[in-house]
Amino acid sequence: MEETMKAKVTVSPRRGVRDPQGRAVLGSLHALGFPEVVDVRVGRFIELIIEPKGEGGPDEVEARRRQEQRLDEMCRRLLANTLIEDYRFETEP
Amino acid sequence: MEETMKAKVTVSPRRGVRDPQGRAVLGSLHALGFPEVVDVRVGRFIELIIEPKGEGGPDEVEARRRQEQRLDEMCRRLLANTLIEDYRFETEP
Repeated sequence: MEETMKAKVTVSPRRGVRDPQGRAVLGSLHALGFPEVVDVRVGRFIELIIEPKGEGGPDEVEARRRQEQRLDEMCRRLLANTLIEDYRFETEP
Repeated sequence: MEETMKAKVTVSPRRGVRDPQGRAVLGSLHALGFPEVVDVRVGRFIELIIEPKGEGGPDEVEARRRQEQRLDEMCRRLLANTLIEDYRFETEP
């Protein structure tokens, strides 16, 4: 897997965790005339460009699996606070 | 369309716009031992719960189209700063 990979990570406040930013956006939407919105949660959207290094070889599938493990580690260690946030990611070649 | 609709909005800095938060995350990922990440952009992920009001009727498709127009208006007026950010959304019933 020598080519560039794009990863899209979404991080959202967990259910049950207070989300003051979401409350603020909800209030603003109502003030702007959108009463149909009943709940808002605000999280982060992170796009990463990844160029796997020195992992080339015949086993593309294994290389991708290993890179996705590393991406999961990035989420847990930096991108999301797993005590209060959920994350998910998807990758594209 | 009387049922609840969920909308997921992603907002990202436009190409060419400075993204200091993305730079900071990139630096932290390198410091944590992820040199394969070559670019990061940080945006927002917003989930909305929508309960369309008084728009019930036989024409579900038209009602959904109208609600998506309203969602687009929410993005342009509040959720994204279209001078420097791109947005996209998807809806699910």
